[in-house]
Amino acid sequence: MTRDLTITDVTLTPILVADPPLLNTAGIHQPYTPRLIVEVVTADGTTGLGETYGDTKYLELTRPLAEQLVGRQVSDLNGLFGAADEVVVDASRVTGQADVGGLRGVQTADKLRLSVVSAFEVACLDALGKALGLPVHALLGGKVRDAVEYSAYLFYKRSGENDTWGAALDPAGIVEQARAFTERYGFTSFKLKGGVFPPDQEVAAVKALAAAFPGHPLRLDPNGAWSVETSLKVAEELRDVLEYLEDPATGVPAMAEVAAKSGVPLATNMCVTTFDEIKEAFTQGAVQVVLSDHHYWGGLRNTQQLASICRAFGVGVSMHSNTHLGISLAAMTQVAATVPNLHHACDSHYPWQSEDVLTERLTFDGGKVAVSDAPGLGVALDREKLAFLHQRWLDDDGTYKDRDDAAAMRLTDPHWTTPAVPRW
Amino acid sequence: MTRDLTITDVTLTPILVADPPLLNTAGIHQPYTPRLIVEVVTADGTTGLGETYGDTKYLELTRPLAEQLVGRQVSDLNGLFGAADEVVVDASRVTGQADVGGLRGVQTADKLRLSVVSAFEVACLDALGKALGLPVHALLGGKVRDAVEYSAYLFYKRSGENDTWGAALDPAGIVEQARAFTERYGFTSFKLKGGVFPPDQEVAAVKALAAAFPGHPLRLDPNGAWSVETSLKVAEELRDVLEYLEDPATGVPAMAEVAAKSGVPLATNMCVTTFDEIKEAFTQGAVQVVLSDHHYWGGLRNTQQLASICRAFGVGVSMHSNTHLGISLAAMTQVAATVPNLHHACDSHYPWQSEDVLTERLTFDGGKVAVSDAPGLGVALDREKLAFLHQRWLDDDGTYKDRDDAAAMRLTDPHWTTPAVPRW
Repeated sequence: MTRDLTITDVTLTPILVADPPLLNTAGIHQPYTPRLIVEVVTADGTTGLGETYGDTKYLELTRPLAEQLVGRQVSDLNGLFGAADEVVVDASRVTGQADVGGLRGVQTADKLRLSVVSAFEVACLDALGKALGLPVHALLGGKVRDAVEYSAYLFYKRSGENDTWGAALDPAGIVEQARAFTERYGFTSFKLKGGVFPPDQEVAAVKALAAAFPGHPLRLDPNGAWSVETSLKVAEELRDVLEYLEDPATGVPAMAEVAAKSGVPLATNMCVTTFDEIKEAFTQGAVQVVLSDHHYWGGLRNTQQLASICRAFGVGVSMHSNTHLGISLAAMTQVAATVPNLHHACDSHYPWQSEDVLTERLTFDGGKVAVSDAPGLGVALDREKLAFLHQRWLDDDGTYKDRDDAAAMRLTDPHWTTPAVPRW
Repeated sequence: MTRDLTITDVTLTPILVADPPLLNTAGIHQPYTPRLIVEVVTADGTTGLGETYGDTKYLELTRPLAEQLVGRQVSDLNGLFGAADEVVVDASRVTGQADVGGLRGVQTADKLRLSVVSAFEVACLDALGKALGLPVHALLGGKVRDAVEYSAYLFYKRSGENDTWGAALDPAGIVEQARAFTERYGFTSFKLKGGVFPPDQEVAAVKALAAAFPGHPLRLDPNGAWSVETSLKVAEELRDVLEYLEDPATGVPAMAEVAAKSGVPLATNMCVTTFDEIKEAFTQGAVQVVLSDHHYWGGLRNTQQLASICRAFGVGVSMHSNTHLGISLAAMTQVAATVPNLHHACDSHYPWQSEDVLTERLTFDGGKVAVSDAPGLGVALDREKLAFLHQRWLDDDGTYKDRDDAAAMRLTDPHWTTPAVPRW
């Protein structure tokens, strides 16, 4: 081994990718959403890939962190956190309030930093794996499964720009969408993004799914839009068909009350999104399944650590997803392959993304993504596609550079604002 | 990278190493203690080293596990746990009772398996690092410090076989021992193994240390020998000079009561020794510092996971030690270098060991061991020394093949049995 694994260059490419008009409690997806592609290059000429949020508040942290990385060893993953701590977060970004859309809890400097670190960590692992001839999972202790199961991530949606799926606005539409997902990708478990319509309509949709796919695991996620009372009512109606109910209410006390009174397992990617939030939530029994997300948590190794904590406390693990491309799906699959206590299918938006930056899209077979044993993440960048999507970002007048589901909603409903919780 | 990292051979070498007559609450160290040296060889000719307990109950698990490893990738560390689960543990070994000496809580099949896995995991990491040209710490995410601090591990002791230190049976003897340790190794914090004499004598020894080394961190560890009442009395007497009190009483409820009533931080390597024991102890506030031990916990990556759990719950981390040689000290140092929340000096018996299997002993400078950046653990096996210590094991008639501190005590006190707790 004489390879020089010093980082010599870091390239940051913000892009805009097509996104269909998916509804959630905060609004509707814009036709284009920002992502950031990170390339870490080492002295021996290896390039590693990472991907994270592309909104301005992330980009402004990514640039100074990238500068700090040059000259470091690509294997120095623990050092990324210290380096990120050196990056100044603009005070205006740390509002102490819920993020736009409120889907990730209160905005903090640490959350912003970790979301940026995650892309660098994945890129470093990809580069390290390629340089050493090892898949990323081997750098994470080795896979314990050969394929990772994903769930069909169903959305209420409109028809519109960048969409071939058509509208789904009632139980029949959701069941139709589920059938299409199943036929195309083989998914056997289903998650419905809720919080869009009054709870009884969403209960009806889940019951329709249960009737159409008897015995299949089902989940409903209103992103904390409900009161404790509403959550308990929904839990009661769906207790026999739900694998888990995801973030029915907002905050640890409300979740703990729903969990205790309903006995239905609650999952979250909202009330436990950082290591600091674990103790209170676990001690109070607020969550029974944590939906990990390597973007939130600061990378693949932190995702493993989160899973270890869950294991020690008898809390389940699954995986959350925001709009993402194939680099992140590959990263999710590599780490998921190493987590022994991953007993639920992971979420992924990937089927909704018609565009990607890879030479070859990842595929779902029987609802699963095969765990690549190729060096690194096992994916390759298509530079033409990357350039095209970057040009779109450059050409954008600012409309789409920061994801804003409420702004998109206002195009059809001028008075729309992100609803206060509990909405119902 | 065309290296073939398939495991082709595993060599197990039980040895007996000289040990001075150190006292603890269970008895006294025998003049020789068993250890097991593990060598994992890969197809490309790389050899990795590991070390663990050498008692019969460990050896009998090590052999079948070694057979299972041949043909696997040396990077498949997560798979070691599954492989170990396949190894049958003799029911007579799983007593549901405290281990000999009681120093490690109740004996379980999992604890035995993890103690064996740890040696293989370290050996695999050493081999992988050597094959890839990376230090073990780089395989663990990279060091966050260049040297790891250790404490002076002081013992009440007799003079006798395999000992050049002489007796230490009162406060003056302990202070003298501490001075010798400080002069020779530069330690600045001190741990006294207690539970040997009535508590007032041990309190006097700690006070003598505090007077001799004002301001230096001090610890006292009676291995759970005290009642809650005695623990509270000692805590009251020593609260101003103790960094922490280690396992004053036995069991989570007693520890929780001492912690709550005394306010003195409690450390443990007895009531939290497996992941399964964490939830109850942390929830009840029974421990403020967990003394990790990669032998107990199943290796270096599990040690990192333990540290993550502690971090999330605001519990401190330090490191426990049983009699060990340089391979384990190198392993401890490599992993300790990667744990950001290691804020206490680690324990090590290494200064008490006059024999080792390495070509070059590790050294303490200013109480610290420098973190090696050489490939793997950065240590090399001296095959002559190994053969000599193995021959001693072969020649032994069974007297020392299973460590038994009580048996050694009976040589001078024929009626000695391991004292019931609380002893005082």
